[in-house]
Amino acid sequence: MVKSPSSAELIGQLFGGDRQAAARLITRVENRTDDHQEIMKQIYPRTGHAMIVGVTGSGGVGKSSLTDHIIQKFRARGQTVGAVLVDPSSPFSGGAFLGDSIRLQRHTRDDGVFIRSLASRGYRGGLSRATYDVTRIMEAMGRDVIIVETLGAGQDEIDVVHIAQTCLLVISPGMGDDIQAMKAGIMEIADIIVINKADLNGAENCRRHMEAALNTRSFTQGQWVPRVIPTISVATKPALLRGIEALMDAIADHQKFLHATGAMEKAKLDRIEQELGHIFRDELQKLVVQSLEQTGKKETYIRHILDGRSDPYSVVHEILRTCIRQENGERGPTRSDGDD
Amino acid sequence: MVKSPSSAELIGQLFGGDRQAAARLITRVENRTDDHQEIMKQIYPRTGHAMIVGVTGSGGVGKSSLTDHIIQKFRARGQTVGAVLVDPSSPFSGGAFLGDSIRLQRHTRDDGVFIRSLASRGYRGGLSRATYDVTRIMEAMGRDVIIVETLGAGQDEIDVVHIAQTCLLVISPGMGDDIQAMKAGIMEIADIIVINKADLNGAENCRRHMEAALNTRSFTQGQWVPRVIPTISVATKPALLRGIEALMDAIADHQKFLHATGAMEKAKLDRIEQELGHIFRDELQKLVVQSLEQTGKKETYIRHILDGRSDPYSVVHEILRTCIRQENGERGPTRSDGDD
Repeated sequence: MVKSPSSAELIGQLFGGDRQAAARLITRVENRTDDHQEIMKQIYPRTGHAMIVGVTGSGGVGKSSLTDHIIQKFRARGQTVGAVLVDPSSPFSGGAFLGDSIRLQRHTRDDGVFIRSLASRGYRGGLSRATYDVTRIMEAMGRDVIIVETLGAGQDEIDVVHIAQTCLLVISPGMGDDIQAMKAGIMEIADIIVINKADLNGAENCRRHMEAALNTRSFTQGQWVPRVIPTISVATKPALLRGIEALMDAIADHQKFLHATGAMEKAKLDRIEQELGHIFRDELQKLVVQSLEQTGKKETYIRHILDGRSDPYSVVHEILRTCIRQENGERGPTRSDGDD
Repeated sequence: MVKSPSSAELIGQLFGGDRQAAARLITRVENRTDDHQEIMKQIYPRTGHAMIVGVTGSGGVGKSSLTDHIIQKFRARGQTVGAVLVDPSSPFSGGAFLGDSIRLQRHTRDDGVFIRSLASRGYRGGLSRATYDVTRIMEAMGRDVIIVETLGAGQDEIDVVHIAQTCLLVISPGMGDDIQAMKAGIMEIADIIVINKADLNGAENCRRHMEAALNTRSFTQGQWVPRVIPTISVATKPALLRGIEALMDAIADHQKFLHATGAMEKAKLDRIEQELGHIFRDELQKLVVQSLEQTGKKETYIRHILDGRSDPYSVVHEILRTCIRQENGERGPTRSDGDD
């Protein structure tokens, strides 16, 4: 049997850019091994320097082929790329986008591209946090650019805004009502609005809609005005692709804008604040689970609620008091239960 | 100006079945008014008696029209219905399914139907909890049956299993790969698999797939074997609808099964356990936010992380120690920071 390398060894290899070490460390962090916090602590100081681009949008708009082209363009410029593909809609797919392995296969022989898929499985309530961790690991690996692709679905769609410095919202013509619904708020997260499948009917209409929606907003001087970029990311031959270069230019312009205005720092602080929140929730939950198990009264509590003798709010407050006392090392006389 | 009624008044009206009172209380609980926990505590003892049916599936499978028919059938049998429509994919739609108001409009004049839509907006990380709360309020209102419809998207798709006693998974022919992906696990949450749009090509194929997938699982004696029910919930005339009665029978059979085997109690305990977890997380987070604000050091912490002088894990542990000390009313000499 081959002894599996220690996390310290893997971290050393990670800093050297080793993909296998990265993959293994990600797995350890995902699985919440005993030393996962220690791993993240050591990795942390080596992070914070990558360009992070978010790609979000509903299913079927061609996000993946777009991501694929973006990766290629960055590679052509000599930059190394990490990509995190987040699919919150696949709770059961076991950690992989449908078909992404096929789609992004051509990159697998390129050491400069490192791809990791995250589905909801195993991340109950924690897919966002996993995304943050994986992004950090890719940074520590030395990737120049990190792309975080998320299927537009609830929480995670919003979270990409906090991780990414430059956020692409990908839509396609014919989404109809969806776009109407989006207008209200989702556009506000986008630095660049990509109208993909621009060869389809309705693309021009879609573009007008987007620009009209942008025009209803007032931008103060010094504020970034989102660009609308039509693209064709799937075509029978390369000559029929459109807009990818324009998109790359828009990304570069937005990055320049962030650096020039100090907004980049704000983006980085925002990312850290979100990260802190995720870690907090996780740690607190651990505390509660431990305490509940220590009391050995979980079943009793639940049954009391079922029987109408208590309610979850009263139980939570009672347990919190107990758990806080214990965490603080006080196991003296218990306080009266009636003082809440 | 009309004085808004007190929560106590509204709760009284709620127990009398008042829809407006229910709507107002839900809004208060959603908005986390100061007394929202008190509201829920008072409501709690009046809950736990409704039949709860979950309806989940991807977009476009016809969940809503199916829900619509189910509501009608329950109403025709004289039962009152509450419906919670959860759309985790609409973070920005401001609390309403696209078009559900139109779709379910015909019920609005029927006092026996009370519908509430929940989108992700305003529920950062808390859409599931909101769903639990709204379900309880509808129970306290005296609804006989509660339908929880969720768009199949990640976390919330799983959560419906814990709220609902009887869980319907709705699929439609032509979902192709999706179904393959689902097979692995999503089918395990379904008590009844509804193949909607059964008039479409591939319906028979789809049914065979589902049944084959079920056959690969081994069911022990006394375990519920999921039913596969083909339906047509959208048709140009009522005579073309199919399978709705069969579906109602399957729901009734599953409910009988739950009662006969004691599985109903298990379902109810499971629901409470999940609820406890949600409330816990919420309360803990409040604790943290309060503590962070009290320390007044949030910005400093974040900047230290940005500057590489600290990392989020160390910060979280430091704050936790502080916050736990404070919660415990100890503001004496601070412990050394180096003892972690």
